[in-house]
Amino acid sequence: MQEELTITSLQNPRIKALLQLQQKSAVRRKEGLFVVEGQRELMHCLEKGWHVESLFLNPDLPTTSDGNDVLDLQHPGLYGCTVYRVSEAVYGKIAYRGSTEGVVATVHTPSHRLADLKPVNGAPLYVILEGVEKPGNMGAVLRSADAAGADAVIVCDAVTDIFNPNLIRASLGGIFSVPVATATSQECIAFLKERGVRILTAQLQDSELYYDTDMTGPTAIVMGTESTGLTQQWREAADAHIRIPMLGILDSLNVSVSAAILMFEAVRQRQNA
Amino acid sequence: MQEELTITSLQNPRIKALLQLQQKSAVRRKEGLFVVEGQRELMHCLEKGWHVESLFLNPDLPTTSDGNDVLDLQHPGLYGCTVYRVSEAVYGKIAYRGSTEGVVATVHTPSHRLADLKPVNGAPLYVILEGVEKPGNMGAVLRSADAAGADAVIVCDAVTDIFNPNLIRASLGGIFSVPVATATSQECIAFLKERGVRILTAQLQDSELYYDTDMTGPTAIVMGTESTGLTQQWREAADAHIRIPMLGILDSLNVSVSAAILMFEAVRQRQNA
Repeated sequence: MQEELTITSLQNPRIKALLQLQQKSAVRRKEGLFVVEGQRELMHCLEKGWHVESLFLNPDLPTTSDGNDVLDLQHPGLYGCTVYRVSEAVYGKIAYRGSTEGVVATVHTPSHRLADLKPVNGAPLYVILEGVEKPGNMGAVLRSADAAGADAVIVCDAVTDIFNPNLIRASLGGIFSVPVATATSQECIAFLKERGVRILTAQLQDSELYYDTDMTGPTAIVMGTESTGLTQQWREAADAHIRIPMLGILDSLNVSVSAAILMFEAVRQRQNA
Repeated sequence: MQEELTITSLQNPRIKALLQLQQKSAVRRKEGLFVVEGQRELMHCLEKGWHVESLFLNPDLPTTSDGNDVLDLQHPGLYGCTVYRVSEAVYGKIAYRGSTEGVVATVHTPSHRLADLKPVNGAPLYVILEGVEKPGNMGAVLRSADAAGADAVIVCDAVTDIFNPNLIRASLGGIFSVPVATATSQECIAFLKERGVRILTAQLQDSELYYDTDMTGPTAIVMGTESTGLTQQWREAADAHIRIPMLGILDSLNVSVSAAILMFEAVRQRQNA
């Protein structure tokens, strides 16, 4: 069992470094680390084979090394990680959800290039997000992508890094189950074209209804921001432009809702194909 | 043109009363008033024929009586309403979004009984929410219901009142465009049965895939909470139990995402029927 170090001061340099990781994407990039909170999220993270650097446990969290239903510090993914037992006050400062979850971890950022995406059995279903800014929306797309069994979410020309704590939280674990890659739009278009993936851009102008479009083959659903939509390079690269009919007074849906509607249409078509 | 009264003190009783209306559902119920923020939202509200009691304008907001693209104080829906021009400090306190929107209004709560729902041309599509708690989720359902052209959202056994400011905000105007009613589940089931509306309950157990269910006739899609699902009375009242396939590691979708997937399946089937 690992040695547990104790931290009781908010001024402890490890705590200060942790807060920096939560708050600043530049620090996450520089350190190659990001932050995961919660036991279930940590388990998903370990299942995926990502490497935990440090654990910060709240004072009351039971741990075990016998594989029972509490945090198992003997999990192979935790070898070599440092375990800190922190005071209630410190845990309150570093945790978003309060003490019930009991664990905050720093995790080594995995590689997330297009080239890391594994080949898919059958026709892949990719979701591409171009320029989407709100981490909560991106996390919600990952949650829906998990449910729809999408093969990857590819974030293009990212303005928000994919290890933002709000994104991870909103994904409810989707960040761990769905392969995620980041790329420029140009790289992503080349990647899709090379693999014969049909590019469907979600846009209102010059578009057909989404359920009139075939999604049974290799398919990429491309979504832009709610405010400005997709850039010209995606519109031009598209094999089809698709839209969700807007039957009321509003002119847009939340990007995660749109993504879910489009992904599940692919699920439906493939089930019935 | 209405007289504009000026308020510069946060201690002004009208400001205190407004903050109470924003914060407390009991006060909203007692006063029969709720709060709307933003010019676009106010226009939707006036178009719907709801009655504005008071307007609170930020100091710089231009107004007009010539029907131009700024707030028109001669709009018939504003007859008899009191107009307060408030200081920057006061506006900052009463507004959620900052000063750009420029207007906060108190509006008389419209009637929202089942009996108020107007008959529908063709096959109605209703969304029923049982026991959903988070106002942000309920607002998001309204936004999607607007897009899908749903005929009403019926909130059963409400734990959150439908005039909660977070709900109104998240609906992005959907609260004004989609008819909303509240009722007990028992009343709602009777209402649907009397009108021959097919009741489809969203549940994982004993259910068929949602896209294998006919939604071309009069249809009610019934959703419970993410945590506990629907109560027995709805499961028993159902004509069919439907589920969205969960193809990843997570066991639920956000309720507004699920509602959108199911509503747009009805849209798809009806378009192709």
